Amino acid sequence: MTRGISSMVGEIQPSATLSLKEEVSSLEKMYGFKIIDLTAGQPDTGPTQDVLEALVEGGRLHKYGPVQGDTELREVLPSVLNAEVGVKYDPQDIAITIGAKGAIDILMRVLLNCGDRVGIMSPYWVTYPESVRLAHGIPCSLECTTNLRPDTARLQAELKAKNIKVLLYSSPCNPSGIVYTMDELEAIAKAVKQEDVWVISDEIYRNFIFDGKTPASILQVKDMRDNTILVDGPSKRFGIPGWRIGVVAGPSEVIKALTKLQGHTSSGASRPVQHATCVAYTSQEARKASEEMRTRYERNRDVFVRGLNEIDGFSCATPEGAFYAFPHVAKFFGRRYRFDGSEYAVGGSAAFRTFLLRKAQVAGVEGAPFGMDDHIRFSLATKEEDCVSALAGIRSALRELD
Amino acid sequence: MTRGISSMVGEIQPSATLSLKEEVSSLEKMYGFKIIDLTAGQPDTGPTQDVLEALVEGGRLHKYGPVQGDTELREVLPSVLNAEVGVKYDPQDIAITIGAKGAIDILMRVLLNCGDRVGIMSPYWVTYPESVRLAHGIPCSLECTTNLRPDTARLQAELKAKNIKVLLYSSPCNPSGIVYTMDELEAIAKAVKQEDVWVISDEIYRNFIFDGKTPASILQVKDMRDNTILVDGPSKRFGIPGWRIGVVAGPSEVIKALTKLQGHTSSGASRPVQHATCVAYTSQEARKASEEMRTRYERNRDVFVRGLNEIDGFSCATPEGAFYAFPHVAKFFGRRYRFDGSEYAVGGSAAFRTFLLRKAQVAGVEGAPFGMDDHIRFSLATKEEDCVSALAGIRSALRELD
Repeated sequence: MTRGISSMVGEIQPSATLSLKEEVSSLEKMYGFKIIDLTAGQPDTGPTQDVLEALVEGGRLHKYGPVQGDTELREVLPSVLNAEVGVKYDPQDIAITIGAKGAIDILMRVLLNCGDRVGIMSPYWVTYPESVRLAHGIPCSLECTTNLRPDTARLQAELKAKNIKVLLYSSPCNPSGIVYTMDELEAIAKAVKQEDVWVISDEIYRNFIFDGKTPASILQVKDMRDNTILVDGPSKRFGIPGWRIGVVAGPSEVIKALTKLQGHTSSGASRPVQHATCVAYTSQEARKASEEMRTRYERNRDVFVRGLNEIDGFSCATPEGAFYAFPHVAKFFGRRYRFDGSEYAVGGSAAFRTFLLRKAQVAGVEGAPFGMDDHIRFSLATKEEDCVSALAGIRSALRELD
Repeated sequence: MTRGISSMVGEIQPSATLSLKEEVSSLEKMYGFKIIDLTAGQPDTGPTQDVLEALVEGGRLHKYGPVQGDTELREVLPSVLNAEVGVKYDPQDIAITIGAKGAIDILMRVLLNCGDRVGIMSPYWVTYPESVRLAHGIPCSLECTTNLRPDTARLQAELKAKNIKVLLYSSPCNPSGIVYTMDELEAIAKAVKQEDVWVISDEIYRNFIFDGKTPASILQVKDMRDNTILVDGPSKRFGIPGWRIGVVAGPSEVIKALTKLQGHTSSGASRPVQHATCVAYTSQEARKASEEMRTRYERNRDVFVRGLNEIDGFSCATPEGAFYAFPHVAKFFGRRYRFDGSEYAVGGSAAFRTFLLRKAQVAGVEGAPFGMDDHIRFSLATKEEDCVSALAGIRSALRELD
């Protein structure tokens, strides 16, 4: 047998955000640009002091812990989920994973046989299709309506026609900020029940919902407990994505299988960080900081999305949650600009992203890896003045687009 | 499509140590036993205070970090590896993973196509074959010589006959404590080069080598850099397995592929813990604690293995490193004992392990999941008095074996 790398490696796309980081820093170096970074899929602020300090006590948990997750953390989560989602889980129905990303990865390995199909609501988080491929499954994009909402009318027929085993979506949605309504969730639940497929409901942005609305979950639909696997986590709400903690709640057979596999894939999440996360979930200070962050991002959304929609050519559905704006930008496609002595054409979302980088010094992420090449994603998890400056930069850049 | 779990889940064996934990605690509850636990694959002591306190500073790294691993940690490791293995790696040749377990898991996904074969030197760490299966590969056990050493004479023919793509072993070996000699490594290297297979050299126990010997690595054999992937980590040497940090060093194509996949499977290891690990690798205090631990485990080995070999029926090769004893126990098979009113036969290593639990109140791990049912593994990462008491318990229990 000759050495070589698995063919999988060639099929997986590297994260779009990562390649972007290189382009940003190379432009900053070459042209002395100061680029406003609206690419981040993470809060701009970090954990509160009490949570930080809890890491030392957590560090004393130096031995292997329960593969399913530390008991103290799994005992705190049921009341959080009950308060927010209105569903009662026992600690044994909950598993702690290596971030929500690690949750999706191991769930795919738990659920899929080679060639099984996963229906992914478009637009979607860039990692979803890659997670499916990494488990030797086949990702199938399910198109949204023209205003970025789930196309519930066609869902059941699509699940059937495409022979879907697992339906996967995030609500609040990364990248669109759309929050599924109870009516939409009931329609999704009906289709899912009829076709007997699993639902993975990624609710990692649940704490970022705007306009005074309360979060809705498919788990609130009657009899959906058996079909639904909830993905959640502390990363966004407490500003700790670098700590790598995710939460899964679901049917006993799924949690047991996940734990069995996790016993061989990682032994579970880092224990000092599990302990500090437990402190975060029970800290008033952390809760207050989280709410302040939400308020700030809602104001950013107001400022940025209004400003964007006032610019000719942009059309942005109002984000109801999360911290992104996902405007339609295809009206700019086909137009041309000059940069550093050469002429460039805007052919698609990646070219438009590069145009904004070069001429507006604003970094967004092209829509293509989110499943919609007509769009671009801006993160609003930043200071308000960055949102204002970005708008000014974009307005000024567009004057140079022929 | 009907819901269901992947067939993989049924094929994977849960970790033997975990099932054992349940048996131990149920015996303790039912009979009021105080069982001496010699099952742990981890040090009995934890990190030093400076390393613990570094977690708070590390906690401020709350945003996503480099998927390949934090730069400061990857910049410290080359000098550690150069001092211990005598091989020069650049920081870009190194990746940080979710423990050494996470390293093996992602390496299998990087290297294997479905049905590719991995040769695993027996006896082996319980997770190796499961990691191969989880990547849809086929694990092939490669038998050792009668004294538990690698059978280098037959290796090349075996690699060829079994169409092996990757050769996997640990030295110092978990469970046997055998440390491969330079002669053995040279013979392995020759076979590997001839058949052009990858080698994964798991050296997680490198800091636990006894009798004043220095560690040998296949990387010290000429021209083995291109074929070899080194797995290492801070868990055992600094007593932080629960923190979940692993280290991989290897050819550029492997590290790049690993990083690409890790960008979708986990985003990398927890950052507070990466920072504190970096402090550990440069701390005199941590180095001293690690050396004290090594000295203590060497003394435990002296006491326990000598004691064991004095007991009729046990035959234990002297562990040269790690912190395990892996005696041959098949001479006890077929014998019988009474417990709580019933009669039991010792049919194999698992039954012998249960006999010791019930009659000696000593917990070891049966050899079967390590690939050798004639053996049992005892961990000596404990207090010396536990080793002494365990010997006394075993001696007394054997008097009740008919």
